[in-house]
Amino acid sequence: MSEKVSPLAPDHIAELPPVDGVRIATAAAGIKYADRTDLMLMVFEAPTAVAGVFTRSLCASAPVDFCRSNLPGGVARALVVNSGNANAFTGKKGSEAARITAETASRAVGCEAGQVFLASTGVIGEPMDAAAFSDKLAALADQADADRWTDAARAIMTTDTYPKVATRMATIGGAQVRINGIAKGAGMIAPDMATMLSFVVTDADIGSAALQALLSEGVEGTFNAITVDSDTSTSDTVMLFATGAAAANGAPRVTDATDPALADFRSALFDLLKDLAHQIVRDGEGARKMVEITVRGAASAGAAKTIAFSIANSPLVKTAVAGEDANWGRVVMAVGKAGQEAHRDRLQIWFGDIRVAVDGERDPDYSEDAAAAVMKRDKIDICVDVGVGDGEATVWTCDLTKDYVAINGDYRS
Amino acid sequence: MSEKVSPLAPDHIAELPPVDGVRIATAAAGIKYADRTDLMLMVFEAPTAVAGVFTRSLCASAPVDFCRSNLPGGVARALVVNSGNANAFTGKKGSEAARITAETASRAVGCEAGQVFLASTGVIGEPMDAAAFSDKLAALADQADADRWTDAARAIMTTDTYPKVATRMATIGGAQVRINGIAKGAGMIAPDMATMLSFVVTDADIGSAALQALLSEGVEGTFNAITVDSDTSTSDTVMLFATGAAAANGAPRVTDATDPALADFRSALFDLLKDLAHQIVRDGEGARKMVEITVRGAASAGAAKTIAFSIANSPLVKTAVAGEDANWGRVVMAVGKAGQEAHRDRLQIWFGDIRVAVDGERDPDYSEDAAAAVMKRDKIDICVDVGVGDGEATVWTCDLTKDYVAINGDYRS
Repeated sequence: MSEKVSPLAPDHIAELPPVDGVRIATAAAGIKYADRTDLMLMVFEAPTAVAGVFTRSLCASAPVDFCRSNLPGGVARALVVNSGNANAFTGKKGSEAARITAETASRAVGCEAGQVFLASTGVIGEPMDAAAFSDKLAALADQADADRWTDAARAIMTTDTYPKVATRMATIGGAQVRINGIAKGAGMIAPDMATMLSFVVTDADIGSAALQALLSEGVEGTFNAITVDSDTSTSDTVMLFATGAAAANGAPRVTDATDPALADFRSALFDLLKDLAHQIVRDGEGARKMVEITVRGAASAGAAKTIAFSIANSPLVKTAVAGEDANWGRVVMAVGKAGQEAHRDRLQIWFGDIRVAVDGERDPDYSEDAAAAVMKRDKIDICVDVGVGDGEATVWTCDLTKDYVAINGDYRS
Repeated sequence: MSEKVSPLAPDHIAELPPVDGVRIATAAAGIKYADRTDLMLMVFEAPTAVAGVFTRSLCASAPVDFCRSNLPGGVARALVVNSGNANAFTGKKGSEAARITAETASRAVGCEAGQVFLASTGVIGEPMDAAAFSDKLAALADQADADRWTDAARAIMTTDTYPKVATRMATIGGAQVRINGIAKGAGMIAPDMATMLSFVVTDADIGSAALQALLSEGVEGTFNAITVDSDTSTSDTVMLFATGAAAANGAPRVTDATDPALADFRSALFDLLKDLAHQIVRDGEGARKMVEITVRGAASAGAAKTIAFSIANSPLVKTAVAGEDANWGRVVMAVGKAGQEAHRDRLQIWFGDIRVAVDGERDPDYSEDAAAAVMKRDKIDICVDVGVGDGEATVWTCDLTKDYVAINGDYRS
């Protein structure tokens, strides 16, 4: 946890109201950090539908393995998250630590271990002593309260400089439902100290298969469209829980993700996911500017996203943004190396509303001063038309500053 | 050109002897820089076999397009290289500038424009006024001398902090032949100011098809196995010329790359290419450490190279090296995100000769002090066995320091 809050942080942290059916508690278990909470328990009062998407890393952490094996059951009663130790690359000891945590949680909550979900974030490769903190879970289950969302967001932080929370209301079949979410992440991932985690809970009554379909669709344009440094955690986890408690207020049960009754909910959910994803980018290690990159005119939406990420992950583009340099030549470079079809002599590039390049060369009306003014903003919009087809995609990143190098390289100096 | 020479620069710059059949001249044409040479002409006295490999960028520069179209002819009489302007993303004006340069050179040397090869490096997107410097080519052709290799290496520099030269001898059919090479590059590419270029000339008598086969094979483990920042130039060019002048000393003509007579030459050529490639990494922008990454036990050599580049391009691995932090957790992360088969629970990692991880967890004999001592070296060797098969590859990179951000961030504030 850094002392200094990101200059891109929201002006204030939203207060999240309760979501019926879930209670939360946190504790300072001393896993790595002193003087802060590092353990979070969510208790779902009744069997709750659950969906998850996880890291594509082939060296996934023990908690990710554990969640993947429980997910087909489709029912959650507890979520345990710790910060300070990722329980990743810890071999058989790691699986054992996950098993101990889940069994202790299942006894505390009164459910099966297969209804417990886990996430860990922090140091990688360090054996995690689950026995040292899992004895706290029984007390946490007793203390858990509906009103602890910001506490939960704080307990899962690592290099984050502010807690990430968001809330939305939606209507399903005329009944109001709530969606609350928390997230953490500051490097897209720095496995030594960070990882991207997000947990979203709604009181809507949605079956787990439909929930999974919604989540898988929802992450594409949100959590799967952000990058801080192109590095991927062994532990990335996004989970969505539906307690169904809103059924008491007349919310109908929905079991098909394509059901038109979900239109408003889907829109609110995706908006919340995007909000949380943007909060992660805005807390990118060392970030001083947020960058929105839109690629259009590509052969397909997938091709557009590949090109957009090629731009977003280019160290040369990111350092140019840090230097407030409207260096569109580096954008051309990043388009060229993406390996996706682009028409060099039809390429157009905009910084903000300033078109800097057209027809494969510098815009004849290009004004260095106008472009420089755009680059002074906190948020930089880069748009590229690659002149081939109709594919379009938007991704978000931040600039690459000396502070990023300092945060990730200065441990020993 | 930086004032400060890289701390990883060679102790001294080799003096290159002449290669029969080629003469060189340089000039200060004022294309962008003041008080330095920025134009280089190589004149091949007789029709000379030529081979080339070029950027994979889909937004290649006009000189790259021009070389690609001349290469099937297989004969070179002149090479013109300028620094200061990349003539990339310059539309029709760019092709026109390339055409003017080549025609002027062909008149100066007395050959066809199809026997002229070009390369440009420097600012991208800025129209290049070829008329302003091509009138110098006639004088250069007159002045050209066999003894100007270091001058040539200096004239093509951009952000390079030292000229990159190498020379080797080899025997073909009992006769001695020479190979000289020069290179430039400091960011793997920073198209605003850098690009990777290399030109190698031998007096061996080798046909162009065989030459091309040798070069294409030779770059795989050398120029195509280095990275500074994962960014790819619009202008990357490596060319190999064989004047055939050594035929006068009894060197036999060889037209098949698999001819056993080429064994010694091939070995000397590949060694020279690796020498030049390493000189580029050692001049990586802001670099203080060279990193050699070997991946073995992969499903194939290609898979090993993909994993090795995933490690070499990871900002988190590179900042850890800069911080002298033996952060093998980040190596695990980079293996995991590479998308190639790896056996998490059989993974082994070494820093230098210190095994830090084995069987999917921290080595039981791991010594933080021993690993820290390795990280203090100028050259860091990272070896990973992914426990799947026999595929192996080695790539080279440098660390990511605050100086990289400073060099490329061009802070205008």
